[in-house]
Amino acid sequence: MTQTRPRIARLKAAMAAEGIDALICFKPEHTFYLSGFNPIIYSHPVIVILPLEGDPVLMVHALRDDHGRSESWVTDIRLYGAWSTKVTMGPNWQEALASVLDEKGVRQGTIGLEEDAMPLARYRVMQGILPGARLVDSSEIFDRCRLIKDPDEIANARIAATLADHGMDAAVEAVAQGCNEREISTLSMAAMNRYWTEHLPDVEVADFGTLEGGAQNGLWTWTLAGDRMFRNCDNSSLRQPKRGETVAIFIWAVANGIHAENERTVAYGPIPAANRRALDTILKIREDIAPLMRPGTPLAELFNVTKRGLEAAGYAANIPGRIGHTIGIGAHEHTSLDAKSTVVLQPGMMFTLEPNLRVPAENVATQISDTILITDTGHEFLTRSRGGYLEV
Amino acid sequence: MTQTRPRIARLKAAMAAEGIDALICFKPEHTFYLSGFNPIIYSHPVIVILPLEGDPVLMVHALRDDHGRSESWVTDIRLYGAWSTKVTMGPNWQEALASVLDEKGVRQGTIGLEEDAMPLARYRVMQGILPGARLVDSSEIFDRCRLIKDPDEIANARIAATLADHGMDAAVEAVAQGCNEREISTLSMAAMNRYWTEHLPDVEVADFGTLEGGAQNGLWTWTLAGDRMFRNCDNSSLRQPKRGETVAIFIWAVANGIHAENERTVAYGPIPAANRRALDTILKIREDIAPLMRPGTPLAELFNVTKRGLEAAGYAANIPGRIGHTIGIGAHEHTSLDAKSTVVLQPGMMFTLEPNLRVPAENVATQISDTILITDTGHEFLTRSRGGYLEV
Repeated sequence: MTQTRPRIARLKAAMAAEGIDALICFKPEHTFYLSGFNPIIYSHPVIVILPLEGDPVLMVHALRDDHGRSESWVTDIRLYGAWSTKVTMGPNWQEALASVLDEKGVRQGTIGLEEDAMPLARYRVMQGILPGARLVDSSEIFDRCRLIKDPDEIANARIAATLADHGMDAAVEAVAQGCNEREISTLSMAAMNRYWTEHLPDVEVADFGTLEGGAQNGLWTWTLAGDRMFRNCDNSSLRQPKRGETVAIFIWAVANGIHAENERTVAYGPIPAANRRALDTILKIREDIAPLMRPGTPLAELFNVTKRGLEAAGYAANIPGRIGHTIGIGAHEHTSLDAKSTVVLQPGMMFTLEPNLRVPAENVATQISDTILITDTGHEFLTRSRGGYLEV
Repeated sequence: MTQTRPRIARLKAAMAAEGIDALICFKPEHTFYLSGFNPIIYSHPVIVILPLEGDPVLMVHALRDDHGRSESWVTDIRLYGAWSTKVTMGPNWQEALASVLDEKGVRQGTIGLEEDAMPLARYRVMQGILPGARLVDSSEIFDRCRLIKDPDEIANARIAATLADHGMDAAVEAVAQGCNEREISTLSMAAMNRYWTEHLPDVEVADFGTLEGGAQNGLWTWTLAGDRMFRNCDNSSLRQPKRGETVAIFIWAVANGIHAENERTVAYGPIPAANRRALDTILKIREDIAPLMRPGTPLAELFNVTKRGLEAAGYAANIPGRIGHTIGIGAHEHTSLDAKSTVVLQPGMMFTLEPNLRVPAENVATQISDTILITDTGHEFLTRSRGGYLEV
């Protein structure tokens, strides 16, 4: 019997409410969500079929059979294609998929497809396989279900956060040593890889690839010094921080498919008053937000506290569009912490807390982010690097 | 004036032949191909419009303006969204895109979209923006155009190959030292990062991300020891190679968006006769193939030489489905070196040469791959790690 996960029940409840007989997933993040299997390379489609009645079915190319069996918690694994002596359902996934849907009695039913991820060309193939089905969009069901993390996901988020913390310690030390952006980043990534190798035997750090590639190692640090902070996201350069500048360190780590984010702004020696005031304003806002991070608080309220705090400090012209995002299977999941959000915090939600300032005219920028878990009674910082004002 | 690339002329010739008035690209690999800009994070769409007449237009969110301007060779950059004091074309990309298409006089024309990559939900948005246009598929045009590499791509492939070679030297040394899979991989990745930091100031090693994440560092090594070679692709484990086993080292490197692949099988001490015979058979086939890697040879012929060589050596039951793939912006591009291929080699083509054997019943596997460039008169191995039989 399949060792199931609470998310399966949540998805099925949403399916029942919307009259969906089966979900068919191709998106790597979703096939992993419903099976625990990430083959890293997706040139041969990985498919999960979740019927309203019964257990999920994982379908993989025959050459991924052993790998899938060893990593997936789904026990009903079907094969397509030809490889070595494996017995498969047929030469291609299209026929194998049709045959599973027939077997489950849903080929003429209502089928949920990931319309925000499925390429048009594949959608047309699905229409060809399922001429009698009603095809509907499952994107919103997944986004909603993914808001609440299951125990296995939370356990892996803690591991990812620990990896990120080790990376941050190494990065801050490298800033203190006078390293350049790229040296800071590579020392930080090496520290995470060392911790992974020495302490996490059963953890995978692969990320989710694209159709043209795969991401073998998702332990990433990038560093932006001084005015390069306005780039927000860029590959680390040989730029050397100068005394009196701030240095932003961005770390994304992944453990068994679940992400954590840890970002810090380090003052490289005493910094100008304008930069110090921006950092102190942000640190104060984070303190104001902390007691609100508990079940029942509207996400929008965290944004509104930030907005009011920035206005009170004279930064009314610099209100960011959002102050964080949900995180989990994706490093950037779809829900934003912004004024428009209608989400109310519940236990099991995970998001980044990152109210920050960019004031290019004053050469002022801050970048501080932590990965937060909402618990039954409040919240927990999963990333635990030293907070407050950091100067080296 | 835009500093153009030969690929623009090739694409325009294909557009003219198919009556396409403009290409609109969202796929990260393609917007990079037509602009040189990889923002790493794609949560705000990056769009390139290539009209049949005139220069490409790069459209980015206002917060990517400075980054885009500094990295792209496209000079016509348009902004959408709101950020700081930037003046933009409007609050969202949809209106900005419609307005550029109006300006170019192609909004009622024939528009090429990437049907093998564009999600259905976005395709529907495009139908809404372009009610008077004829929407056609541009996927095949891109695949065909990408077969021939431009000088800038070849220059970057050489850098990626050099990175991969440094990673391989470190990995082979680590096998000799008795390291486990993960130690071998992390030492190899650290060596590539060190070379990047010390010798390649102007090179970015970011890869192309997904809608939920970004790949900051695409210098990847994974290692599979003994019977784990049958996994083909898996995250490195703590498995220690045993004397008498083969160890497969897989390296993917990227430089300014262009990939190289370098894979070797290392014998950890003397190996059983069956494993040695498999490696010698593959090495002999690679020698047979070498003189055929030149302009004018059908790709399928490289596969057929492999097939005949394996049959002659008694491996008729173990013919692989393909013996390589094209490579460039993608680590795995779409054209396979297989029996069905109709492609004929031309100067500027790049592919991996990787005829290999998997014989699970005999616990025999080989994994050797190099990145090859077809030149005017023959070929060049871009990866140059020691070949032949490797024993440590």
